[in-house]
Amino acid sequence: MYRFECDYTEGAHPRILDALVKTNREQTAGYGEDAYCDTARKIICLACGKEDMNVHFLVGGTQANTTVIASVLKPHQAVVCAETGHIAAHESGAVEATGHKVITLPSESGKITAAQVRKCIDGHWSDPTHEHCPQPALVYISQPTETGLLYTKRELTELRRVCDEKHIPLFLDGARLGYALGAAENDVFMADLASLCDVFYIGGTKVGAMFGEAVCICREDLNRDFRYHIKQHGGLLAKGRFLGIQFETLFKDGLYLELGRNAVREAMRIKDAFRSAGCDLLYDSPTNQQFPILNGAVLEELEKNYSFSVWKELPGDRTAVRFATSWATKLEAVDMLVNDIKRACRIYGEKTPAWSADLPE
Amino acid sequence: MYRFECDYTEGAHPRILDALVKTNREQTAGYGEDAYCDTARKIICLACGKEDMNVHFLVGGTQANTTVIASVLKPHQAVVCAETGHIAAHESGAVEATGHKVITLPSESGKITAAQVRKCIDGHWSDPTHEHCPQPALVYISQPTETGLLYTKRELTELRRVCDEKHIPLFLDGARLGYALGAAENDVFMADLASLCDVFYIGGTKVGAMFGEAVCICREDLNRDFRYHIKQHGGLLAKGRFLGIQFETLFKDGLYLELGRNAVREAMRIKDAFRSAGCDLLYDSPTNQQFPILNGAVLEELEKNYSFSVWKELPGDRTAVRFATSWATKLEAVDMLVNDIKRACRIYGEKTPAWSADLPE
Amino acid sequence: MYRFECDYTEGAHPRILDALVKTNREQTAGYGEDAYCDTARKIICLACGKEDMNVHFLVGGTQANTTVIASVLKPHQAVVCAETGHIAAHESGAVEATGHKVITLPSESGKITAAQVRKCIDGHWSDPTHEHCPQPALVYISQPTETGLLYTKRELTELRRVCDEKHIPLFLDGARLGYALGAAENDVFMADLASLCDVFYIGGTKVGAMFGEAVCICREDLNRDFRYHIKQHGGLLAKGRFLGIQFETLFKDGLYLELGRNAVREAMRIKDAFRSAGCDLLYDSPTNQQFPILNGAVLEELEKNYSFSVWKELPGDRTAVRFATSWATKLEAVDMLVNDIKRACRIYGEKTPAWSADLPE
Amino acid sequence: MYRFECDYTEGAHPRILDALVKTNREQTAGYGEDAYCDTARKIICLACGKEDMNVHFLVGGTQANTTVIASVLKPHQAVVCAETGHIAAHESGAVEATGHKVITLPSESGKITAAQVRKCIDGHWSDPTHEHCPQPALVYISQPTETGLLYTKRELTELRRVCDEKHIPLFLDGARLGYALGAAENDVFMADLASLCDVFYIGGTKVGAMFGEAVCICREDLNRDFRYHIKQHGGLLAKGRFLGIQFETLFKDGLYLELGRNAVREAMRIKDAFRSAGCDLLYDSPTNQQFPILNGAVLEELEKNYSFSVWKELPGDRTAVRFATSWATKLEAVDMLVNDIKRACRIYGEKTPAWSADLPE
Repeated sequence: MYRFECDYTEGAHPRILDALVKTNREQTAGYGEDAYCDTARKIICLACGKEDMNVHFLVGGTQANTTVIASVLKPHQAVVCAETGHIAAHESGAVEATGHKVITLPSESGKITAAQVRKCIDGHWSDPTHEHCPQPALVYISQPTETGLLYTKRELTELRRVCDEKHIPLFLDGARLGYALGAAENDVFMADLASLCDVFYIGGTKVGAMFGEAVCICREDLNRDFRYHIKQHGGLLAKGRFLGIQFETLFKDGLYLELGRNAVREAMRIKDAFRSAGCDLLYDSPTNQQFPILNGAVLEELEKNYSFSVWKELPGDRTAVRFATSWATKLEAVDMLVNDIKRACRIYGEKTPAWSADLPE
Repeated sequence: MYRFECDYTEGAHPRILDALVKTNREQTAGYGEDAYCDTARKIICLACGKEDMNVHFLVGGTQANTTVIASVLKPHQAVVCAETGHIAAHESGAVEATGHKVITLPSESGKITAAQVRKCIDGHWSDPTHEHCPQPALVYISQPTETGLLYTKRELTELRRVCDEKHIPLFLDGARLGYALGAAENDVFMADLASLCDVFYIGGTKVGAMFGEAVCICREDLNRDFRYHIKQHGGLLAKGRFLGIQFETLFKDGLYLELGRNAVREAMRIKDAFRSAGCDLLYDSPTNQQFPILNGAVLEELEKNYSFSVWKELPGDRTAVRFATSWATKLEAVDMLVNDIKRACRIYGEKTPAWSADLPE
Repeated sequence: MYRFECDYTEGAHPRILDALVKTNREQTAGYGEDAYCDTARKIICLACGKEDMNVHFLVGGTQANTTVIASVLKPHQAVVCAETGHIAAHESGAVEATGHKVITLPSESGKITAAQVRKCIDGHWSDPTHEHCPQPALVYISQPTETGLLYTKRELTELRRVCDEKHIPLFLDGARLGYALGAAENDVFMADLASLCDVFYIGGTKVGAMFGEAVCICREDLNRDFRYHIKQHGGLLAKGRFLGIQFETLFKDGLYLELGRNAVREAMRIKDAFRSAGCDLLYDSPTNQQFPILNGAVLEELEKNYSFSVWKELPGDRTAVRFATSWATKLEAVDMLVNDIKRACRIYGEKTPAWSADLPE
Repeated sequence: MYRFECDYTEGAHPRILDALVKTNREQTAGYGEDAYCDTARKIICLACGKEDMNVHFLVGGTQANTTVIASVLKPHQAVVCAETGHIAAHESGAVEATGHKVITLPSESGKITAAQVRKCIDGHWSDPTHEHCPQPALVYISQPTETGLLYTKRELTELRRVCDEKHIPLFLDGARLGYALGAAENDVFMADLASLCDVFYIGGTKVGAMFGEAVCICREDLNRDFRYHIKQHGGLLAKGRFLGIQFETLFKDGLYLELGRNAVREAMRIKDAFRSAGCDLLYDSPTNQQFPILNGAVLEELEKNYSFSVWKELPGDRTAVRFATSWATKLEAVDMLVNDIKRACRIYGEKTPAWSADLPE
């Protein structure tokens, strides 16, 4: 059984483990106030071309999302995101637990547009009873999205513009950022994030680290007292250097980008295999997550040797599933999978799938 | 400069790193649903002599405290602890952030008594306006306390009795539990915790792990849906096996106890050195934290080669400080410190400290 | 200018004012522990045929909703309601501010069905990642709905059944309950509410009182400590008797029902007028709120002498608006309005409105 | 039995009832956006000599406190008050329920000093681990205090100075403000409050109104979006004009001050009676609450005809109790009480109370 169900089934990249082992017996200050964290912060600032950016290391994604959102919003304010947004769908109400509504915008693709955001905010303020409604005051997006898609630089710039216009911050969840940066069609680079977002984070957990997310705060006012918020949300790791050492390793010598590219390359092979075998894709993802639509027989056949997630039941014995590669995905495993896809679809596939007409584009 | 300022200045015990490295490329399910976590859970249950205990692995202490407390209390209820309790003093209001008051009981020593708890609860219910006051509904203690002291089995049993009588749970924070178990005078063992507490946790972060706290829930009703709470508080580590592997390593072959004993042994040498040199101790701690009271000259002298924490300014040029040892403290460093204490006190110490009369007992 | 924009534009029913004036100089205990509140509680229990019901008097609807929901749910749990539900749409995120997600079910009509609730709950529990999603644990409905419609006894019984089956409570917001009870087609009476709901409340503010909502808790376990919750949410009125006196007045001699019937009668005259004049209705409401769809010219004409709310902009110069009557609506004002509707539609109305085809049924 | 247990045992001042009755059938907009509220706001601004002050009408004191505090603080911040402060002691954890710690300063008298506040804040910021502690960010005081005492203008000015110096707002709870303004020794007037506080409120509930507190926000930035907060906390009364009408009545023609003076005059007669009869007073209160210390026999004797609150059990059969007068206290009732005090103390009193030495000053 080979696991493609998510991008956190393996441990950490060997270089990271090496670095942890090598520095293990050193004594350092706790809570991220050590030299490793300082170095990592500097390297990340450099990578973003923004020296004065504030970087904080947190343990996980839900923690990063909750801490940032709670630190930005006032009690009557809400965060706006796609209905598929991780904070809306898969964080056990962590944002609501800090007192805030998550306003969701309809989105087939997992992306939201500047026009949607503008309409949402204008709609709020033009409502004569707006004081009876939570005030949209932060935009949350992911790169790549939950659906594996990418915002283009133009789209991100438009979101930035509406945020400027409405005076609300833009927050980008980069839990899988490495797999965006590693995608062939990506045109949003580190420096773009630093100049277009108010806050964003660089995911380590899913891209080679044991754990860890580097939260980058691009505005001084939003950074003020942020460490209190981290502590309050249980995110101030006592042995904080473990985070610094990991991010230093990921960002010196370009390891982070390399890991991203490798995972995407394998994902593209899987995507091609499904396509060639006649399978539709729920989303045309250029990143490490692939969403083929399988009939029951093919699904059952593939389940024999691979684990993957059921994403969405569709009408007519169709199921959209998710295969995720990661920095650790083995070439040989993908070879085998590609063969098995071919074989399964040849035997069990439908030649002219009647059901492909009504898919979201 | 050698660091004695806290017990999390080094990395992880080598056996833990070895285990992480050895298992690194294996694929497992995420979120603590892997075989390593299962094994670790079983070993801990075994160590506690309580097969049906529920064990959950969280990343850090503040997270563990907040998640447990928020999962137990209803909105109008409060947790009761010593005024020195970690949740009251050093967690940035994390408990309050989940909506609950922390009711503090006065405590010179850092311990609270069954009589104090009874009085607090009886006082609440006998107040005709009790509906206007947060309802005490959970007791929080630490073993060892923030002050390095230990509850005896008798004291813990009495606390248990008052909790039974009042129908409120008892929660024990064992962030430094290893250093309690490793103390010569300790008479509260793992099985006692499992039978006397409703919830307790076993600290890994400060006792040899990279990070991690094992929350043990001894009552089925309090365990229900606990994983939702972990997720909501950002504590469900994606690569959860890292926690399982660490706790498996700590609890098989008695490593955890061994680490505790070593740290306490070194702490006792430091304690003896201060005592022999004529220094008073703020608390008579049998565990890894020592609280000598130094005059300004001695303090300054020791600061040249050692880092330690200022604990409390006292009248008359006296300062109580804290030296903490850990599983990683080097014998040679303590040798050197012992010598330096002797020397500094010989030169700068006061022979008959006039200020020892009014110390807390 | 006559106001039909909502049902709280006037003061209180004269009998209520009389009762307040008459008892004004008496001395009573505070916080609802007076004889007037006791009497009112008894009368309401009697009216509901449920002696052992717990009745609490709160000041307003948002307060009642928030207090009930926060008292019922654990932190990881969510309340389920129609997307038009007042708690979802018009309470400034009050429920989220207590830490809970509001899960909304799609609803054109403002009503939700037992089938929808079952699907929502089953969907949650059958999701393998359900621990990453807020747990649906309370159903919230309104009678009448925000759209003026009524649940039938059969529908309510079905909702009760699914709640029993799933072991989650059913909470009914009766802010406008009087206008449900006063509707000709209503078949859900006080005793039905008491036997089918776990918690419901009887709205005073909109039905003749100065202010006040009577929260009825039908289960002993949900009532425990409820007064703490009221106090915590700022709802324990110091001079609580003002609430008792008002509800005593409303519920002795059948005043509450009488007020409801009068308002509905006037609303029906307005409805008929719009219908006869050829206007479509957004909802076929049998209660005090009416939702005619007007073209721009008619709307403008009516705005000259009446205030009413814009409910929803529709395509093609159509606007759904809301006219609300109340216990205080004057017969003569409705006479005048009916005439003006007739006149305006005769002049500006469309004979065969092309736009009526695609309305929700 | 005559009630002196608190200052909200009667209804409302007749002029208020008259005004409510007179305006009852008028139609107005809801939620405080009516002409009565506008007028009341203007009159209050005038009374405070501050035209640009923002005034909001809320229903009750706990609601006012919670709403203001939650609107001012960020999640990691705390409010500082006397340990006797109402928010710390008698609001069922309402402030904590919004996520904030209440930091209490020791206070025998119920007052806090500028020096205490300065020390608290300096102590926070000079603590190297301050990021692990809730940040003091708002000062809460009451005028009069829970103990019936008054801040002088000088004391208030000093508090203002430390707040300016530390850049944190000063919030004054004036639930009983009328009884401060009505005290002979008071030197803090409405205009002083408006110039020295950032936010304060004028209590109606305890000073002649049915209910209602007028929150005055003296800084534009703190006023922004405040109505959202009111709504979120369930404080936006639908028939908001009831608040406007009451405050208009209280503040035109000086009724509010008159009511305050009358209550204090009666309180002084009670105070004198206890003093003359040889009773000690727990606090030397110049306002409507009096705190005589009674022995068991005198207490029992007075309980036969009067209700009053037990405030504090003291050693040696002594109990401090509270008698509260109000705007509605009857002259004849006080005549009778004065006689009964005299009589009870003559029979049961102690001539030279041995226990008066160790009272707080």
